[in-house]
Amino acid sequence: MTLQGWTLPQSATGRSSIVAAPPWHYSGEIIAVDFTAPPDAVAALLPKGLSPTPEGSASVVFADWCSASDNDDRVIADPAIGQYREAYLVLHAVRGDRKVGRVPFIWVDSELSLLRGQIQGFPKKLGQIAMTRPVAIGRGGVRKEEGSLFAAHASSHGRRVLTAQVRIEAQTERLPKAATLPLVHTRLFPSIDRSEPSVHELQLGTIANFECGTIYTGSAKLELGPTEYEEIGSLGPVKVGAGYVFSMAFSVLGGKVEPL
Amino acid sequence: MTLQGWTLPQSATGRSSIVAAPPWHYSGEIIAVDFTAPPDAVAALLPKGLSPTPEGSASVVFADWCSASDNDDRVIADPAIGQYREAYLVLHAVRGDRKVGRVPFIWVDSELSLLRGQIQGFPKKLGQIAMTRPVAIGRGGVRKEEGSLFAAHASSHGRRVLTAQVRIEAQTERLPKAATLPLVHTRLFPSIDRSEPSVHELQLGTIANFECGTIYTGSAKLELGPTEYEEIGSLGPVKVGAGYVFSMAFSVLGGKVEPL
Amino acid sequence: MTLQGWTLPQSATGRSSIVAAPPWHYSGEIIAVDFTAPPDAVAALLPKGLSPTPEGSASVVFADWCSASDNDDRVIADPAIGQYREAYLVLHAVRGDRKVGRVPFIWVDSELSLLRGQIQGFPKKLGQIAMTRPVAIGRGGVRKEEGSLFAAHASSHGRRVLTAQVRIEAQTERLPKAATLPLVHTRLFPSIDRSEPSVHELQLGTIANFECGTIYTGSAKLELGPTEYEEIGSLGPVKVGAGYVFSMAFSVLGGKVEPL
Amino acid sequence: MTLQGWTLPQSATGRSSIVAAPPWHYSGEIIAVDFTAPPDAVAALLPKGLSPTPEGSASVVFADWCSASDNDDRVIADPAIGQYREAYLVLHAVRGDRKVGRVPFIWVDSELSLLRGQIQGFPKKLGQIAMTRPVAIGRGGVRKEEGSLFAAHASSHGRRVLTAQVRIEAQTERLPKAATLPLVHTRLFPSIDRSEPSVHELQLGTIANFECGTIYTGSAKLELGPTEYEEIGSLGPVKVGAGYVFSMAFSVLGGKVEPL
Repeated sequence: MTLQGWTLPQSATGRSSIVAAPPWHYSGEIIAVDFTAPPDAVAALLPKGLSPTPEGSASVVFADWCSASDNDDRVIADPAIGQYREAYLVLHAVRGDRKVGRVPFIWVDSELSLLRGQIQGFPKKLGQIAMTRPVAIGRGGVRKEEGSLFAAHASSHGRRVLTAQVRIEAQTERLPKAATLPLVHTRLFPSIDRSEPSVHELQLGTIANFECGTIYTGSAKLELGPTEYEEIGSLGPVKVGAGYVFSMAFSVLGGKVEPL
Repeated sequence: MTLQGWTLPQSATGRSSIVAAPPWHYSGEIIAVDFTAPPDAVAALLPKGLSPTPEGSASVVFADWCSASDNDDRVIADPAIGQYREAYLVLHAVRGDRKVGRVPFIWVDSELSLLRGQIQGFPKKLGQIAMTRPVAIGRGGVRKEEGSLFAAHASSHGRRVLTAQVRIEAQTERLPKAATLPLVHTRLFPSIDRSEPSVHELQLGTIANFECGTIYTGSAKLELGPTEYEEIGSLGPVKVGAGYVFSMAFSVLGGKVEPL
Repeated sequence: MTLQGWTLPQSATGRSSIVAAPPWHYSGEIIAVDFTAPPDAVAALLPKGLSPTPEGSASVVFADWCSASDNDDRVIADPAIGQYREAYLVLHAVRGDRKVGRVPFIWVDSELSLLRGQIQGFPKKLGQIAMTRPVAIGRGGVRKEEGSLFAAHASSHGRRVLTAQVRIEAQTERLPKAATLPLVHTRLFPSIDRSEPSVHELQLGTIANFECGTIYTGSAKLELGPTEYEEIGSLGPVKVGAGYVFSMAFSVLGGKVEPL
Repeated sequence: MTLQGWTLPQSATGRSSIVAAPPWHYSGEIIAVDFTAPPDAVAALLPKGLSPTPEGSASVVFADWCSASDNDDRVIADPAIGQYREAYLVLHAVRGDRKVGRVPFIWVDSELSLLRGQIQGFPKKLGQIAMTRPVAIGRGGVRKEEGSLFAAHASSHGRRVLTAQVRIEAQTERLPKAATLPLVHTRLFPSIDRSEPSVHELQLGTIANFECGTIYTGSAKLELGPTEYEEIGSLGPVKVGAGYVFSMAFSVLGGKVEPL
């Protein structure tokens, strides 16, 4: 019969598929740290057409997401499906006359997000992510306020790939770069019967409903790697900049594709 | 040398120990559902001296905790240590002229909490817990407000042991029983060289700083088991009562011990 | 620059990529159970051009794999990368005049295998797999011999999707169908900017070096689901057939692609 | 009523308890590496009455276990219960005129083993363990034979605590020290209402049915830590000795307890 489903596994109804087609909606708690890396090392992770900034600027982002899908109401209904944590690097880059972001490495703790990401060109691997979560009452945790320490780390195959912390010092109106640079992804799906890939193209997400809550900023610490599986050791960090703690939300309506 | 540490592993400094001595502080997000079970089935899970209520009342509680320890600042600082989720049953019982609670089964996703619990008499096993977490902005999740659906489930060894949901209908001033009944635990540590246990005693926690946020209530659904490892199938549920969604915080200063 | 890597993430060297191009080699321990399902239910999971057998024959397969990759020596060297467990259904089907197999659902506990599978058209989801492993000495486990009980189960999102056991009764020369039917997969990679997929084609793996160890057979038990995410409840089982315990090895050199 | 069960959780039948009383049986695959550490650093992890060897000799052991329990047939029947992996350090020590071993740190991936270990005085924490497993046929893995590389690593909270590898060079008749030194454990269960522990005593296991398969030996590599939670960095290694790959089996009948 004609099997249904936006992704595998397909079935008569399409209800077994891991990912349903967009629109997708995201509400998350973010811990981010700006840093600089050797521009050469940044360049070695950028696709043709993107150049590093002169100072090699970049960010690390940790996100604790709730997500929803217009075409699958189980994503918002079942917390085991829609919720996940991820951690990633954003290299700040220039493409023509436009400032863009590029995600060379990203780890996530969810099957849905892993595959939903691969379809968009996020190079998602599995990882374990821990992030300080503010509490509303009591002494078991910290408040999202001046003086609080927010920590986050990510590991993969038992190696700590990212370790960060932010000591909140103030509120700010300035949106962190990591939240505003449009991301340029590479969609890549290999062929199995020849050497050139079946899909190999650039992709820019069509984003709507972008929103941030109060943005807290402060001093930060950051450690990259070591790991034998991702080439992040070369990125330093050379200099660690400001850290940020904030809520962020947006929708992905689809994407725009361009040749490599 | 004289090794230090409140629990194993001990070392010269005591800093390798899994659990540091109380006080411990807890701030959590709770999803709870009241239900009734056959009183005989409740009685079969109560220690001597505790009796079921006439209607066999009980609750299921899911909690997403941040925790802190006065004697180990790494618990609040490292989200991989202090944060965890757990799910448990509370049987409502009568002990002498006092209403108490008894936790016959509890699952948790953290090593620290597993052992800290066993020391108090919580019969903690490992499990995977998922809970709807409200969002502040955006469309990726639900708000803690009228009409929202909060779901939660727990599994162990690949079996779904608890599945619950609460549809919020109103705020309430009434504290859920599951939050207020003093819990009567059994501390049990076997001996290795004879048949009687090394430790076998009742324990009631010394609780301070108890606090609840706004309490939301609504209609609920609940499913228990099936599992071949915990005797929860006999508990029904006979009748599912109200559900609750709220923040809760308290401190454990220590405990009071009584003979069995 | 021109980024390298058969899959994401790409880098200057290609060494960060999750999957390297074939050849891939597999050595595994298998527990399999034959069963029959309502032929209509089988048909609802088959792509156009494949028909169920009259009796609706099918198999469940659990595999504990070691794998290697000619293009990435870390796969065999690091047990966290190359080793994994998976569980799947094989529907026995007819395609033209040829008997084939079709895998409608499969769960695996490894990122590498999840993505390597998706590229071939295996509809892999993440799951937790447990399998009896024979022991060589001592009383901690069972031997691969007459009378021994081999159990296996798979779960996903805290639901037990497959539960099987085989009581070994004899050796057999007959290769189980699940090991010999050529598998017809659907490669499916969605587009992000239009409704038709970027890749949607049939794929048959090019297999070499196929080898089985001694094949043990016996009576079996099998339970499918329940789960709200995969449509396996309709498959019964109607009748549970023989079970098998054996070692299996093969290489995947690539694949042959055909239009849908 | 009088609740049953050797450990929590107790119930009317005792069948919900995590651990059943011994005898327990173990069959495992071992990868071990001998090394030396600064004797002072060894001494800082030994209890009163134990002294380091002059050269500070020690071993790291990785084990992939199948286990069984005479009082709970589900342990051998359900692979999710009885099977687990662990990794530990053994410090070689002298107690009076006897050579003994002491396990200062151990990580395990199973709830049953964690608690069964704590009862004996093994200071078990949770961890993720990966070990090369030999294959019988095919090219997906290595054989247990000369020239093969066996790798193993353990991580906890996303930190690699132990990383080892052994290149097999020969068979040997000599049993590795790590397999033969009688282990001196500390059983420690805190009280909750006063500062002195409820249980604090030495324990030596009563072992029977000890058996090893063919013992392979070769050159080895070893890396300890770094981790902020276990004091293993001070142990070096100063010098890495021989590595071993072998099968091992034994039974624990109970234990003998001595005052501290």
